Amino acid sequence: MNKSIRAAIIGSTGYGGVELIRLLLRHPHVEITSVISSSTAGAPISEGFPHLHTIIRDKLDPVDVQLIRSKADVVFTATPHGVSAEIAPQLLDAGLKVIDLSGDFRLRSREAYKEWYKREAAEQAYLDQAVYGLAEIYGDRVNENVSFISNPGCYPTATLLGLIPAVKSGWIDLKSIIVDAKSGVSGAGRGLSLGSHYSEVNENFKAYKVNKHQHIPEIEQALSDEAGTPVVTTFTTHLVPMTRGIMCTSYATLTDSKTEEDFIEYYEQFYEGRPFVRIRPKGTWPATKEVWGSNYCDIGFAVDQRTNRVTIISVIDNVVKGAAGQAVQNLNLMMGWDEGLGLDFTPVYP
Amino acid sequence: MNKSIRAAIIGSTGYGGVELIRLLLRHPHVEITSVISSSTAGAPISEGFPHLHTIIRDKLDPVDVQLIRSKADVVFTATPHGVSAEIAPQLLDAGLKVIDLSGDFRLRSREAYKEWYKREAAEQAYLDQAVYGLAEIYGDRVNENVSFISNPGCYPTATLLGLIPAVKSGWIDLKSIIVDAKSGVSGAGRGLSLGSHYSEVNENFKAYKVNKHQHIPEIEQALSDEAGTPVVTTFTTHLVPMTRGIMCTSYATLTDSKTEEDFIEYYEQFYEGRPFVRIRPKGTWPATKEVWGSNYCDIGFAVDQRTNRVTIISVIDNVVKGAAGQAVQNLNLMMGWDEGLGLDFTPVYP
Amino acid sequence: MNKSIRAAIIGSTGYGGVELIRLLLRHPHVEITSVISSSTAGAPISEGFPHLHTIIRDKLDPVDVQLIRSKADVVFTATPHGVSAEIAPQLLDAGLKVIDLSGDFRLRSREAYKEWYKREAAEQAYLDQAVYGLAEIYGDRVNENVSFISNPGCYPTATLLGLIPAVKSGWIDLKSIIVDAKSGVSGAGRGLSLGSHYSEVNENFKAYKVNKHQHIPEIEQALSDEAGTPVVTTFTTHLVPMTRGIMCTSYATLTDSKTEEDFIEYYEQFYEGRPFVRIRPKGTWPATKEVWGSNYCDIGFAVDQRTNRVTIISVIDNVVKGAAGQAVQNLNLMMGWDEGLGLDFTPVYP
Amino acid sequence: MNKSIRAAIIGSTGYGGVELIRLLLRHPHVEITSVISSSTAGAPISEGFPHLHTIIRDKLDPVDVQLIRSKADVVFTATPHGVSAEIAPQLLDAGLKVIDLSGDFRLRSREAYKEWYKREAAEQAYLDQAVYGLAEIYGDRVNENVSFISNPGCYPTATLLGLIPAVKSGWIDLKSIIVDAKSGVSGAGRGLSLGSHYSEVNENFKAYKVNKHQHIPEIEQALSDEAGTPVVTTFTTHLVPMTRGIMCTSYATLTDSKTEEDFIEYYEQFYEGRPFVRIRPKGTWPATKEVWGSNYCDIGFAVDQRTNRVTIISVIDNVVKGAAGQAVQNLNLMMGWDEGLGLDFTPVYP
Repeated sequence: MNKSIRAAIIGSTGYGGVELIRLLLRHPHVEITSVISSSTAGAPISEGFPHLHTIIRDKLDPVDVQLIRSKADVVFTATPHGVSAEIAPQLLDAGLKVIDLSGDFRLRSREAYKEWYKREAAEQAYLDQAVYGLAEIYGDRVNENVSFISNPGCYPTATLLGLIPAVKSGWIDLKSIIVDAKSGVSGAGRGLSLGSHYSEVNENFKAYKVNKHQHIPEIEQALSDEAGTPVVTTFTTHLVPMTRGIMCTSYATLTDSKTEEDFIEYYEQFYEGRPFVRIRPKGTWPATKEVWGSNYCDIGFAVDQRTNRVTIISVIDNVVKGAAGQAVQNLNLMMGWDEGLGLDFTPVYP
Repeated sequence: MNKSIRAAIIGSTGYGGVELIRLLLRHPHVEITSVISSSTAGAPISEGFPHLHTIIRDKLDPVDVQLIRSKADVVFTATPHGVSAEIAPQLLDAGLKVIDLSGDFRLRSREAYKEWYKREAAEQAYLDQAVYGLAEIYGDRVNENVSFISNPGCYPTATLLGLIPAVKSGWIDLKSIIVDAKSGVSGAGRGLSLGSHYSEVNENFKAYKVNKHQHIPEIEQALSDEAGTPVVTTFTTHLVPMTRGIMCTSYATLTDSKTEEDFIEYYEQFYEGRPFVRIRPKGTWPATKEVWGSNYCDIGFAVDQRTNRVTIISVIDNVVKGAAGQAVQNLNLMMGWDEGLGLDFTPVYP
Repeated sequence: MNKSIRAAIIGSTGYGGVELIRLLLRHPHVEITSVISSSTAGAPISEGFPHLHTIIRDKLDPVDVQLIRSKADVVFTATPHGVSAEIAPQLLDAGLKVIDLSGDFRLRSREAYKEWYKREAAEQAYLDQAVYGLAEIYGDRVNENVSFISNPGCYPTATLLGLIPAVKSGWIDLKSIIVDAKSGVSGAGRGLSLGSHYSEVNENFKAYKVNKHQHIPEIEQALSDEAGTPVVTTFTTHLVPMTRGIMCTSYATLTDSKTEEDFIEYYEQFYEGRPFVRIRPKGTWPATKEVWGSNYCDIGFAVDQRTNRVTIISVIDNVVKGAAGQAVQNLNLMMGWDEGLGLDFTPVYP
Repeated sequence: MNKSIRAAIIGSTGYGGVELIRLLLRHPHVEITSVISSSTAGAPISEGFPHLHTIIRDKLDPVDVQLIRSKADVVFTATPHGVSAEIAPQLLDAGLKVIDLSGDFRLRSREAYKEWYKREAAEQAYLDQAVYGLAEIYGDRVNENVSFISNPGCYPTATLLGLIPAVKSGWIDLKSIIVDAKSGVSGAGRGLSLGSHYSEVNENFKAYKVNKHQHIPEIEQALSDEAGTPVVTTFTTHLVPMTRGIMCTSYATLTDSKTEEDFIEYYEQFYEGRPFVRIRPKGTWPATKEVWGSNYCDIGFAVDQRTNRVTIISVIDNVVKGAAGQAVQNLNLMMGWDEGLGLDFTPVYP
């Protein structure tokens, strides 16, 4: 159980991939044996990421299933949507364990995928095999028999950890949920676009994909599962002039007379024993920097008697808990290890 | 009508005051005759604000009503809450016109002021005299007979310009309004605090004063006036790591089957002839940088059939339209001038 | 002399071009009659630059010399290096006045151009015709007989305005000049590159093109001209995580026992009557934000007796004084107008 | 040798102190037994630093030497200048090991201290006892017999690691050294000042304390020691709109015909076996983000044949290698442990 495993990372030159490297380098039971990139195979990874100079001297491997099979036990696919749908099945067929960080295996409905992602969904058999790895909620489904994890999206992670206990409590009107979400720019990845161009983003705050973000069906799928009835939400995404961090400010109408203390107590019980969710004391709300560089999801509450609504504020580091960190957490669960192994990063402040 | 008037600015060493200087320097009919600061009187203003070096060589005057009376026709009081309540009546009694940028004269209810500002309200007679200067809505109340303007708050300006047409249209459920507001740091002023300390704010996004911001009663007072019935709102304020800009993302449930086109057409008619409100084309939403340094308020819409809600996104530069710019606009109206005089600043981009 | 002229801007969808629009909209004697872009001709300019929504309703024109000739008297070519070398001669031949913002006509030596720009230089005849428009130094060469201005680069403007008086004073050792330059990211333009990608630049400070920047020969050409002897400099460029602003920190060994007061007095005399150069008082140095959005170049000094060196700090807004603002200043000189016409922008602070 | 030691941190509510907590939490042989603050003793540390919520539940202890003695073996004094001069001697007298992060024990000359720090120096006996802990240079002086370390300043660390090999090589003219230094804002600490106020710093680049920074004598003391002859430098400090990171761009005239390859080879040999100094390949230079959150100092070179100068670019994270990280490195050396123990943080990128 404590033996080392060998990990390969496909998409090592994206932000999710390079963060997996940072995290796995500190993992006591994992050895990174292959860093893989389709676009720059053959070059040392430190050429494109000089912060890894002297830390990783490896050259990037090409995407070659047999080569991966020979070098690794588990593969993280930090690949763009569409690419994972192709490569993950091949890796699984080759007998590898796979943790996919893309959106390709998160939606059970192939129709929903096609509608929101504007492309064909992955094959049904593999969709059926994938376990949705929202660790604090579905962690009990992940064990040594599971070979394939679909790692949740960044917005869904922050939204769902903030909302699922409320949804299950019965204290909120399920038809009233509105999520106002804000993300740092790293969520858009390393691919070039005017929307991530420094001079366009700096000293600017903007909304994008209003009501159209592909994370909406992922959120609604989980909320509906937990509620036992279809839930739709109004979900707005905004871009914040910062690199890392997501805040979801969620609103719902109370069905019952509940206080902030009630919510805090309920959430603390709900997340008891889960080290990465931290419930904030009454009257305080988490800021994104307070989880920066760490795997925490922090949650705070405000109840307004005037309007009979609860405001739930949840924050994560989108690159860690919203991607690479939760992927490592899922690896831990998959291997039967403590879920926090190698993830004891204190947030970097300031 | 075209003669110059002489203007004094109390609070010239705050961000609102120094922005008034920038704007009034370009105004064809205004001469700044006194820059006033209680704290640093006697020093050249360019000592504390070197960007004014060679532009304004004046020394700061003390707060002295007789001196002001001798030098000015109109006074902008860009002073902290509580200070304006003291000084504005004295200036009015001395026969000066006053445009107050503080919150001291915005609420008609002295009880509401005390509850939200945690201090005693100004005297009733002066509250009665103040005209609430939300220019595009109440501009017709401002004319040459008006001596005292209470300039709206930054959040209320963005929120109200975004919501009032919808409230008046009857298309939204008045009980359903939620405003998720975000502001740059300059809104907190030049006074030192940990909350405005660079290393605490940079690369950080946070919520503050949730349900407690003193702009809430100001917003609800105007919405209730326009609706003809009491309106309460859920209103959350967030701090964005940038200097200037406010975005209000407002949500409401539709009472009728309306489209984005309907809202755009309605708002364009509503604001016809008001140059500083710009309605964005369907499918686009304004970003804060697109009004940066200017007096514009830009508004965009999203209607979601799935949830039967409208999302209204309104942005301003908090220092201009949310403070100094609207104050100059009010001066123009008060003097019978074109409301845009001296305010034709194109947003600075990038 | 006061009649309006008609201006066209080629490259209206770059940062230099869009800033020309902002400035010229406020110019009392200029009418923008054509905004031109080779890449997006036919689209409204406000589609790509929504901050211009309602301000400019024009569609982008293609690059068509006859069309331009029919619509304009003067053309600003805010085009990439290489493109100007092609288009400017055609415009001149068509009888238009041209102000070129590229580097194509700044170097008299075609060999130097080829060495530093890695491409063929423009034709000699046009190089000969171009007047290098560093306004405060060579403004007397620009008059109504001049048809073609080569607008200086951003780094050269800040460096040369800081160094030329010192070079001419004889107080510094010409062999000792070192310039440590820092620029905001807008200097790299709107073209996409990893070096301008938000997540790579934010919270990062880096050096680039050390000893290799194409502005080095431009600086040395002017310094050598002024010194009457060849001058070489060590020149390092750094990227600052901000959008606008350049600071050049220049070092030189004193040949004589001079104080900060000596430098201040000398520079004030040198730049007497030139409104856009501001000399800072002893013991203070300019920050980039103190000229933000304006056409100023601010300069401060430190003399160190311990090391017998002077440190000269000069700052500009790279998009204004370093590009569009100086271009307008050159237009003013070319037309025989006051050089400051339409450029009385107070720096935006904060 | 591998037994745990107990550590106390005085000044736990400053940025240096809170970073020590982050680092020591990962150290395999150190237990933090007391977090100490004179100003907020009695409050939980997570009240002022919510990122530590659930990680450290301790309340802040007062500064009480006997209490510290009872709880700790080693004390980090992350206290302001002047405070350390008082408290460190008391702690030493009580038999504790002390690592001081202030400037109070870095200068051997009490006169120099008084001149640059504008206050009285610490007592001579303690100055004599302190070992200047620039780990890669003077690490061999630190061993289990040493009780008192004076941890170097942030600027000196970056400057000296970049310059000392060059000074010792004999390849540069010692009279020609100019250091152009740039720092993120966290270097100014958590104390409030207009110079660290967000709206003043954001989108701004400025010089400060030109030729007057108190780190100058510290740098010159070490350079002179290494050169065996007095060395003076021109040293300019600038503030970068970012939280963490220092870059020192150092210039010197070559005394010999040396290439970039020569410097790279020499430096690689000089720092052989020192894991935290990384020499960059020819033609590349380090950016501050590439060491962000880590204990690395990265160094790159440019040699300019035209001017016969070398440019040496060195970067650190000012809070880690420039303060808390180097302090832990010194603890490791002091305890006879591997110098890298607990410091294997990969830089956080992006």
